[in-house]
Amino acid sequence: MTPSERLQKQVAFITEIDKLKKIQRQTILLDRSRRENDAEHSWHLAMMVIVLAEHSEEPVDPLKVMKMVLVHDIVEIDAGDTYAYDQASHSDKAQREQAAADRIFSILPFDQTIEMRALWDEFEAGETAEARFANAVDRMQPLLHNCLTEGETWKEHGVTRDQVVARCSPMAKGSQRLWDYMLAEIDKCVKAGHLT
Amino acid sequence: MTPSERLQKQVAFITEIDKLKKIQRQTILLDRSRRENDAEHSWHLAMMVIVLAEHSEEPVDPLKVMKMVLVHDIVEIDAGDTYAYDQASHSDKAQREQAAADRIFSILPFDQTIEMRALWDEFEAGETAEARFANAVDRMQPLLHNCLTEGETWKEHGVTRDQVVARCSPMAKGSQRLWDYMLAEIDKCVKAGHLT
Repeated sequence: MTPSERLQKQVAFITEIDKLKKIQRQTILLDRSRRENDAEHSWHLAMMVIVLAEHSEEPVDPLKVMKMVLVHDIVEIDAGDTYAYDQASHSDKAQREQAAADRIFSILPFDQTIEMRALWDEFEAGETAEARFANAVDRMQPLLHNCLTEGETWKEHGVTRDQVVARCSPMAKGSQRLWDYMLAEIDKCVKAGHLT
Repeated sequence: MTPSERLQKQVAFITEIDKLKKIQRQTILLDRSRRENDAEHSWHLAMMVIVLAEHSEEPVDPLKVMKMVLVHDIVEIDAGDTYAYDQASHSDKAQREQAAADRIFSILPFDQTIEMRALWDEFEAGETAEARFANAVDRMQPLLHNCLTEGETWKEHGVTRDQVVARCSPMAKGSQRLWDYMLAEIDKCVKAGHLT
């Protein structure tokens, strides 16, 4: 491959991922004006990694965690966002996302296809310190948004405290301190009547 | 400061910067459906750093470049987005952005206020290899969007090739190869009648 062909493939990938800005999530912005999209969400997670990495349960390579959170939702360009509490859609989520990863990451030059796929696989497997911390902030952000908007999307979907705790408690594997903080916030929501 | 107070300050900052998702830029999405916002733009730049860092003029610390592009527009929460070709708004841009940096970064614990401010100052000064490459991708992304949307925002604002070259040629300090690539794209736009 010539250097020019390599650059063209890289630009084609950068162009393709613009579509992530159109993938809507359930999470709403803190001013409650609209739902957020995957690109905004990924930026917010990367900022959380910068600010909160000191609370990781184990030492992490911050560059790797940052890349993981920036890349982790790109598969949703094809596979769509699957709401955390939607059991039905979760049945074929893995299959849809694998196919998306195959297509989208292979737009890049081969060595970068491998790098991106490895980052995404590691995030999904959640078995390294970096993946555990990346998964923790990925759970913390929508949780924080719900707590700060009187549980708006919880109410909309009839989500209960038990479901939230079951979904978010794996945060503790990435950061016990952040999970303790969020658990206290969840209980404030229950007390205030925003979560049943 | 207790650990709990420190975490509260960090969460307050993470909450505050949600507002970046509401700051509209002139750049339009590649499907031309709407303008993009600063949070999406910052994510897109961080992805460009991952994919294109090999083209930097000088070796760079990728973590630092990544942090710079993620943080560089946060001041626009208060100062608003200043269009690259709007000379009038540029007259008090620096003053507005300094005041914004003072307010927003100081929400963090003191050591992190210093870190964020240093990243932003370095990006703005553009005098290190990392800042030059971060500035190059910050110029390249809207340029690429214009080239791929038949110069839609150029036409809207009556921007000329000379203005585009004057604005974007400092890209070469960060990456001659990326600038050469974009200059060829600009000339394709002129040929196709999308830029005068």
